[in-house]
Parts: sequence; C-alpha cells; structure tokens
Amino acid sequence: MPKVLFTFPIKEQFRNELEKEFSEAEFDFSGTMENAERKHPDILVTYGSDLDAASLGGLPDLKWVMVASAGVDQLPLKELGERDILVTNSSGIHKTPMAETVLAHILSLKRALPQLREQQKQKVWEKVKSGELKGSTALILGPGSIGGEIGRLLQAFGVRTIGCSRSGSTHDGMHEDISFDCIDEHLPEADYVISVLPSTPETRWLLNEEHFKRMKNTAVFLNFGRGDLVKEEVIIEALKNKEIAQAVLDVFEQEPLPETNPLWKLENCTVSPHVSALSAKYVERALEIFKENLRVWLSSEGSYKNIVEPDRGY
Amino acid sequence: MPKVLFTFPIKEQFRNELEKEFSEAEFDFSGTMENAERKHPDILVTYGSDLDAASLGGLPDLKWVMVASAGVDQLPLKELGERDILVTNSSGIHKTPMAETVLAHILSLKRALPQLREQQKQKVWEKVKSGELKGSTALILGPGSIGGEIGRLLQAFGVRTIGCSRSGSTHDGMHEDISFDCIDEHLPEADYVISVLPSTPETRWLLNEEHFKRMKNTAVFLNFGRGDLVKEEVIIEALKNKEIAQAVLDVFEQEPLPETNPLWKLENCTVSPHVSALSAKYVERALEIFKENLRVWLSSEGSYKNIVEPDRGY
Repeated sequence: MPKVLFTFPIKEQFRNELEKEFSEAEFDFSGTMENAERKHPDILVTYGSDLDAASLGGLPDLKWVMVASAGVDQLPLKELGERDILVTNSSGIHKTPMAETVLAHILSLKRALPQLREQQKQKVWEKVKSGELKGSTALILGPGSIGGEIGRLLQAFGVRTIGCSRSGSTHDGMHEDISFDCIDEHLPEADYVISVLPSTPETRWLLNEEHFKRMKNTAVFLNFGRGDLVKEEVIIEALKNKEIAQAVLDVFEQEPLPETNPLWKLENCTVSPHVSALSAKYVERALEIFKENLRVWLSSEGSYKNIVEPDRGY
Repeated sequence: MPKVLFTFPIKEQFRNELEKEFSEAEFDFSGTMENAERKHPDILVTYGSDLDAASLGGLPDLKWVMVASAGVDQLPLKELGERDILVTNSSGIHKTPMAETVLAHILSLKRALPQLREQQKQKVWEKVKSGELKGSTALILGPGSIGGEIGRLLQAFGVRTIGCSRSGSTHDGMHEDISFDCIDEHLPEADYVISVLPSTPETRWLLNEEHFKRMKNTAVFLNFGRGDLVKEEVIIEALKNKEIAQAVLDVFEQEPLPETNPLWKLENCTVSPHVSALSAKYVERALEIFKENLRVWLSSEGSYKNIVEPDRGY
C-alpha cells in the first residue's frame, strides 16, 4: 500500500475525503518534512520550499512529489530527474486569483483609488485625475494558463493584448503573439508590461535597463512571476527617473523583501508580499489535481496532469 | 441662425471642430449662465447644475437644453416640460469609466489592496486574507447602459448578475432580471449590491434598514447612482453593526460630504467624491452626442439621441 505524506496541514474535511475515497493508500497528515525522513513515504505532498537535495536523500522510497504550488524553481530538480521521480505541480489553479489580483492593481491605479483613500483619511473632497483602461495595450510576458486568463479579462475591458513567450506561438487571450526576441520593438506600444513568467534559464534576467528605457513613461510594470526576471536596481532606477510611471511587484530577488530595500518607500511602487495567488479555494483546488493524479497512480489508467519536466524547469 | 451657448469652457480644438462643421450655427463659448441670460441662446449646453427655474425664466428663446452629464435631477424639469423645451443628456458616455470604477473597488477589496498598502507603509511583509470574485452574485439596481456594462464585466469574472429595475424587464449583462417589488427575496443571495439608479420619485429612499438586515453580513454595498437612494443613517448603522461587511459610496445626500459625517471615518466605508464617471475622454464623448443631435436639429432629419422625458425624470 503506497504511503502518502503531507508536509503541510490540511483541514479535517479534506483528510476525511481523501481517506474515504482512497482506501488503497495510507495517509500521513502529520505535517513536516522531518516526519517524512523517518517514515519513508512513496508519495510526498508539499508546497515545495521544504524539499531540498539533502532531505531528498533521506527519502529512499520516494516515487512521486506532488507540489501544491505552481513554482518548482526551489525544488532539487536535477536530483529528482536523476532518480526518475515523478513531479507534478498545481499549475492552473492560480489563474483565477492571480488574474483577479492583476486586474485589481491595474484598475485601482487607473481609477486613482490609492489617492482617494489618502484623501478620505484627511476628509478631503476633491476630484482626482483618473483615466480609462479601455483602449490601452498590454504586453503579457508568459501567456500560459495565468497569462491567458489575464489576457481574457483585459480583452473584456477593451484592452489590446500581446503575448510574449519563448516560442512566440499563439495563445488564448492574446490578440497578437510574439517571441522574446521581438520584445524590444513592442515595448514602446505597451501601457502595461505584465510578467507571470516562471524562473527558468531563459527568463532569468530577461529584462534590463534598455528594456525599461524603451517603455512609455506612462507605462505600468507588473511582476507577478519571479523576482529574477530583472535586477531590482534596474526597476528602482527606472522608477526614480520616471522612465515608467508605476511598478507593482509581488515577487522579489529576496523574499521577504529586506527592510533596507528602497522599493518599500518609492511612491510610485506597490510592494505586495507574494500573495497574488492566495485564495480561500487554494488547497481545495490543489487537492482536486492531486486526487485526479492519485486515481491514475492507483489504477495505472489514464495520464497524469501537470507533469513537471525536471530539465525544462516548469 | 440658431445661437448655441456653452455654460462651461471647452478646449480650443473642440471649439474649432464645432465651428468648422456647423457654419449654420452661431457659437458662444463665453462660458457662464450669466452670459446666457444676456444673450438669449436657442440652444444651451450645460452640465446642468447652473440651470434652475429662475435662470430658465431669463432665457425666453430657449428651445433645447443639452446636458453634458447623465443626471438631470437638478434641472427644473417641470418648467422645461411646460415650455416644451427639448432636453437631451449624455447618458451612455459614463458607462466605461463608471463600470471600470465599480470593478476597481470590488476587486481592490476582494484582493485586500487597501490592507497591503497600509502594510507597505510599515514595511510589513505579511500574508493577507483575500478571496475570489469568481462564483459570487451581484444584484445591480439600475440595469441600463451603465448597469449593463458593469454586469457584462462582472460576468467575465464569473459573477452571477441579477438586474433590478422598476419593470423587471430583461437587460443586457444580466443573468436574471427582477423588479423593485422582488428585491426583498433576492437581497440575501447577493455578495454585491450595486446601485447606479438615477434619482426619480420611484428610486428616492427605495432602500431602508430592513433591506440592509436582509443582506449577507459579508455583502458589499456600492452606491454610484444618487445619494437619495437610502438614508445615510441607515448605511452608518448597518456598517457599525456589521450587518454588511463594506460600503463604497460615490454619492451622498449632501455633496460635498460634510466633514462631520461619520462615513468619512468608518473603517469599513470607502468615501469617493463623486468621481466614478470622470475620464479624460468625458467632454469629447459628450460633444459627439451633441453633434449628432445638432445635425438632426439643423437638417430636421433623423431623430434625437438621449431625449429626457421631463415627467419621467431620466
């Protein structure tokens, strides 16, 4: 009977549902990686950050790692690949909260909500300068499941969407698709430059100061992917010199963002503590994917969802 | 030659365009109602608040009032009706900025942006409780042009929309349509109660404390119509007693909102200074409607857009 160990706690309701449906598996909900190293599970369910090469060494029976998040850049992918361990993630469950978050920030800035909030504190009744999202252009770096959902919603607001990926192939939610190689010529068109890219060798430090100089000085740059897309000093300079109007950052080179980082205090920067994918429905949705895959595992029928290719990195 | 007088200033570009296209009309862009009373225009273009029964008495030749806003509740409708003066408004031009504003507030609260902003000021890196808009239900009071656009956008986010009007007839952007008479039974379903109703005899004080008691205690009430939909003391009590979670108010019984009004300081109330329809494109769009109607006026061909029925009040 395969042993399934969760390294994070889940609600009693979810535990009961799993045990009821999967009587052919043995569940351990004790909730830590230390436990895992003593109990030698076949299947590990983790958020990912607690699994490194050393702890992997302590799991001789491991055959499958189910990651309850989308990012797998913290995983020991090389070692997992060498041991031929199946890795699946929860890609796809983030698209709703992330797209809602991105739209929330874009609309909030466009309609001057932060300024109105400050005015309310002072009981100031004063018109504010606010524009329309309709008719603007968004360049979306990473037009996959999340980027496509952002694109679909932006299109409903009358925004032109350009998807930008490694291959430049066509994607849902995009009016136009370009490859990373063509980013230079399209940056000057964009009112919004939105990244939801994962961290891979191709995306690491993809953007530099030249890219920011090419953006409109009214542009808003939003990073909801990974903090190693661009050096923070580049963003800081672009914001200080008003090369762009605003930045909204949910991811950083170092997280939590150190208190000494100037981004905290730049008036044209919104710092968000890596929360864009949070949702009350998060665990429920991750477990749905896990259950589908566990059915495949136990029955040896069907195919796995969300397999991560260790050498591709997503 | 008909005399057209604007009681508010417009950009030179717009003045030139009007004079170029309509050489059969005489334009006066001098910009005040006092001027109007000396110059006896046939056609008056106004935002509406400067035209009362007394000033109307000083305009013996007036045949048409073009209102560059949507609300006509401040106009001397009775006297205009008696003198059979054509009244047109700019209804329809507000739908884009207003719908964007309503979505901005809804998403901003859902994704906890105000809380994140306060955290940033203190350099606090901490997760926040944030939910999803998807799957919720909105009751939209006033499912016309603006309400329909709000409904259309909410539907794109996976929100169920219920339109509520005097007649209960079907409207674009609504999954369901109900009449004012059925509001009681539908209030307990709504996560969002959004009003964009004009001020008319039927909508004045339409909501009372019983309605707020029927709402979910997680509900958000948004008023972007007129401040006489509900007594402010009712909203204040509902917010203080947590009968509802949040209110977002762009309109008030008295505007500007007096400094002594408790709404300013309630932590679960957003006070917005009647700015939801503002847009850089506002005047341009209002003039488009005016030009269409002026062509009809001068050619006596076609039919007028946006005629206001003085006895209906919108």
